[in-house]
Amino acid sequence: MTTSTQTATFEAAESLARCRDLVQPALRATVGALDRDLEMRCGFALGWWDSDGRADGHGTGKGLRPALALLGAQAVGAPPDTVVAGAVAVELVHVFSLAHDDIMDGDERRRHRPSLWKAYGVGTAVLTGDALLALALGALAEAPGERHGEAARLLARMLLDLVGGQAADVAFEDRPWTGPRAVTLAEYRHMAVRKTGALLGCSAAIGAALAGAPAGVVAGLEEAGRHLGLAFQAVDDVLGIWGDPSVTGKPAFGDLRRGKKTVPVLTALADPRGGDRLAELLSGERTGPEVRQAAALVAEAGGRAAAERMARHHLDAAVGGLRGLGLAEPAAAELIAVARSLADRRQ
Amino acid sequence: MTTSTQTATFEAAESLARCRDLVQPALRATVGALDRDLEMRCGFALGWWDSDGRADGHGTGKGLRPALALLGAQAVGAPPDTVVAGAVAVELVHVFSLAHDDIMDGDERRRHRPSLWKAYGVGTAVLTGDALLALALGALAEAPGERHGEAARLLARMLLDLVGGQAADVAFEDRPWTGPRAVTLAEYRHMAVRKTGALLGCSAAIGAALAGAPAGVVAGLEEAGRHLGLAFQAVDDVLGIWGDPSVTGKPAFGDLRRGKKTVPVLTALADPRGGDRLAELLSGERTGPEVRQAAALVAEAGGRAAAERMARHHLDAAVGGLRGLGLAEPAAAELIAVARSLADRRQ
Repeated sequence: MTTSTQTATFEAAESLARCRDLVQPALRATVGALDRDLEMRCGFALGWWDSDGRADGHGTGKGLRPALALLGAQAVGAPPDTVVAGAVAVELVHVFSLAHDDIMDGDERRRHRPSLWKAYGVGTAVLTGDALLALALGALAEAPGERHGEAARLLARMLLDLVGGQAADVAFEDRPWTGPRAVTLAEYRHMAVRKTGALLGCSAAIGAALAGAPAGVVAGLEEAGRHLGLAFQAVDDVLGIWGDPSVTGKPAFGDLRRGKKTVPVLTALADPRGGDRLAELLSGERTGPEVRQAAALVAEAGGRAAAERMARHHLDAAVGGLRGLGLAEPAAAELIAVARSLADRRQ
Repeated sequence: MTTSTQTATFEAAESLARCRDLVQPALRATVGALDRDLEMRCGFALGWWDSDGRADGHGTGKGLRPALALLGAQAVGAPPDTVVAGAVAVELVHVFSLAHDDIMDGDERRRHRPSLWKAYGVGTAVLTGDALLALALGALAEAPGERHGEAARLLARMLLDLVGGQAADVAFEDRPWTGPRAVTLAEYRHMAVRKTGALLGCSAAIGAALAGAPAGVVAGLEEAGRHLGLAFQAVDDVLGIWGDPSVTGKPAFGDLRRGKKTVPVLTALADPRGGDRLAELLSGERTGPEVRQAAALVAEAGGRAAAERMARHHLDAAVGGLRGLGLAEPAAAELIAVARSLADRRQ
């Protein structure tokens, strides 16, 4: 790790904290308008309290998406308070998608706690997700000013990408590890740019759209955000296999146990140095010793390095894109620092 | 049945068919933009084909909500093609809410077919519902013209009502039949105006909002649609107990078997002529003979008559409201004919 990375991480943490302070009151007020039961469940999904209503400081996210929305707006010269609604909307959409994805993926843990459906049952988790999405739309529709049109289009397109990407990801589960029907890296990238990239792209652009920035700048911010999403997903793929369970809150080698088709695995499967042996291992039981051995095979075949390369490539593309937009300082530098910190995250 | 009712029903059927013809191409195009798998599942939810992709003519809804949207717009003088997106949006939101509600309520049948979750599994039904909602937002956001703001606000508020109403309806299940914690008729009405009234209100108003009608007219159409929703719900409550299974596609006395707290039941429970006996029956097994007996008790205690009175009252309020708005003919007369036909429906 270099000193410049450490500086970027430190600056990013400061920016994220500042953005959280700006967004949190509006987010609380938005969720607080719900009936008590729904409010409690939405707050649980947002990590504000556990299922007994106790706030324990765990579980709240870093607020990456609202930070991108605020910084994107500040980078086009908008005062943050006029675009907070966009930041609130993308955070709520993010938590909506986690709530519903956890049902589909059968994930029982989220942010060191039971997932929403595990805590409250599937029906309640479906409805709470719907409530989070409805709140997001409400926040955006009631935002001050009369520039909702472009922001609403960004949000709607992003949601269509989100469901399309999730559908593709779920469909990958039924595809074989090898042969002509195996998932290709190109298919994976197309899935990831929709499932992960679209929301980061929308986040980076929505504040600027609400502020009435020129279409080219809004599109450039969205494109940079999509690259950031692909970098984010590649890092996620590495953490999903080699992340520290005590930091990520997820089991060791989790993605291998679940048979997820990720960049490291797809790269390694295509490698002559052990792809067949890996496919054999992944087609089997995928319990303790097998997943450890599979992880070693994936690393040896260059799967981890490929994912790290992919993360760097898309991070560079995002940073390069942001630099080319002629954005205002210091928000532009903060955006870049936040972007860099993503590629260096541990959870 | 009077001749004027028969005429209204006939006219309503003609209006609904004309509106379906106007909306269907746009609806097909909207859903057709999805990836194949999601398109097939959304089309299944819309009743276009069964799970093998066979179109059998069953299952397609009457298109009440899009008809309200189109007629509401025509009633303020707008040409239908400028507001079709609003009609598409409310139909998609309707089918989204059915898809998710069937999961929460455990309903296995819908429109003479397996419900979406029963046909494809819960995870797929969650995602398909999300896709339908995303399509609705996309249709509205990409609508021609620049008057999305008010339409987007109507839609967002309606969605918040929808989830709040569904949450209340689900919570009613855990409440006792009698005593201080029993569900009151006022609570029921508040639930129904959100769960059913909000979407019909939004439907009646959204086309006019997209067409740029004055705020007072948009609000008046929304209010009339909400009354229509309450009338619709009261009729639904009657059909849920006394509807003909061969017409409704639902089991006889279905709402009694499921222990639903509806207007007829809540009214009868409050009646000295047999409320206690009814509560006792409903607290028991609720199989064959008990539900038949319970249905007779509900009718004897005036529960059916109360629901029919409620339907008439809100229908009159809707029609009176529409008449007071100075709407353009023939759309105004068609709106009223469609409204009247709702109170006379068998399914």
